[in-house]
Amino acid sequence: MPDFRLHCFCQSGNAYKAALMLALCEVDWEPVFVDYFNGETRRPEWREAVNAMGEVPVLEHGDKRLSQSGVILTYLARTIGKFGADSEDERSEILRWMLFDNHKFTSYFATYRFLYSLAPQPGDPAVMAFLKTRVDGAFAVADKHLAAQPFLLGDRPSIADVSLAGYMFFPKEEHGYDFAVSHPGIHAWTERLKGLPGWLGPYELMPGEKFLAQR
Amino acid sequence: MPDFRLHCFCQSGNAYKAALMLALCEVDWEPVFVDYFNGETRRPEWREAVNAMGEVPVLEHGDKRLSQSGVILTYLARTIGKFGADSEDERSEILRWMLFDNHKFTSYFATYRFLYSLAPQPGDPAVMAFLKTRVDGAFAVADKHLAAQPFLLGDRPSIADVSLAGYMFFPKEEHGYDFAVSHPGIHAWTERLKGLPGWLGPYELMPGEKFLAQR
Repeated sequence: MPDFRLHCFCQSGNAYKAALMLALCEVDWEPVFVDYFNGETRRPEWREAVNAMGEVPVLEHGDKRLSQSGVILTYLARTIGKFGADSEDERSEILRWMLFDNHKFTSYFATYRFLYSLAPQPGDPAVMAFLKTRVDGAFAVADKHLAAQPFLLGDRPSIADVSLAGYMFFPKEEHGYDFAVSHPGIHAWTERLKGLPGWLGPYELMPGEKFLAQR
Repeated sequence: MPDFRLHCFCQSGNAYKAALMLALCEVDWEPVFVDYFNGETRRPEWREAVNAMGEVPVLEHGDKRLSQSGVILTYLARTIGKFGADSEDERSEILRWMLFDNHKFTSYFATYRFLYSLAPQPGDPAVMAFLKTRVDGAFAVADKHLAAQPFLLGDRPSIADVSLAGYMFFPKEEHGYDFAVSHPGIHAWTERLKGLPGWLGPYELMPGEKFLAQR
């Protein structure tokens, strides 16, 4: 049995953060498919057996069962000894970017993409405009930072990069952004991440069927 | 000169998280008023001198200058030795709640309250409905958890509680929620927090003028 099991599905960028970390660390792991779009995470059996909060991803490692991608990334960095912090100052800097990611970067972009291409009904135009303004604000901060240095903490990649990269490898038709044109700093950074040993995209690393909403 | 200086203003619940932590730890600190509503954080001088991301709070301690409330709380817990984790498992549990706070709890509620009572223009009804659904979902998770135990990690308060409490002491007219009626688990928890030595509300701990939007 593999060392790590990750409950996930291919559309979840939050699950991809954990899957990408496992892939980049080149450890022995297996995905466990969660049938999110058919309501599996809302069923009481699943909530009891896997995660009371109904959220994906969930990582199993020995008798540990962890949820929240940022918790999983922090745990994996410590346990495996890769992509983590070398000092308290670096630990603060990684946490700063992971909180920014959860507060403003992934959070708004993931919701925007879901309403843009995956939800059965498109998002209300006022809601989409509200979300896009916030996505653009968060992207501008990261784009400026990444135009000046290869990775978020400087010269080497860390779990901060893995966290912010969660939704950045989904294709343009899912969200409408062409980063090479709109955000060259972000685009160059995603290309650098693609060049790391072990890198694979979300649809390659995690199970499930790719689709766009039929409306 | 006090040991800690906190750049803040009284309407910011994210700044209040840091101010409340300093108050509960009963250390020597002083607030530095940030004139947010007159655009101080958008001025290049302020961004250069205090925080390039334009965000409040910022904590100064010796030669350290920290932003992001979750980073500040983690730093203060480690430096002062109060309200932090006693083990790696507790550290993961605190991080899990702080990420949930940044992703779903504070983030949506802070934005909802701003558009509800502080922004010059009220929020679009579709945006307000979108935000309220997400606020209610996050409140339901915390309410259920806190109905079963005194604080988020169990019997003792931690920086996870301080983080989620950031916007919970603003009066009903600012957001429309009467927690005693709508969320008794959350209400009882806020009462427990009020009973801790050193507790004071945001308008008592931080400088600035209280107001509601004139529309």
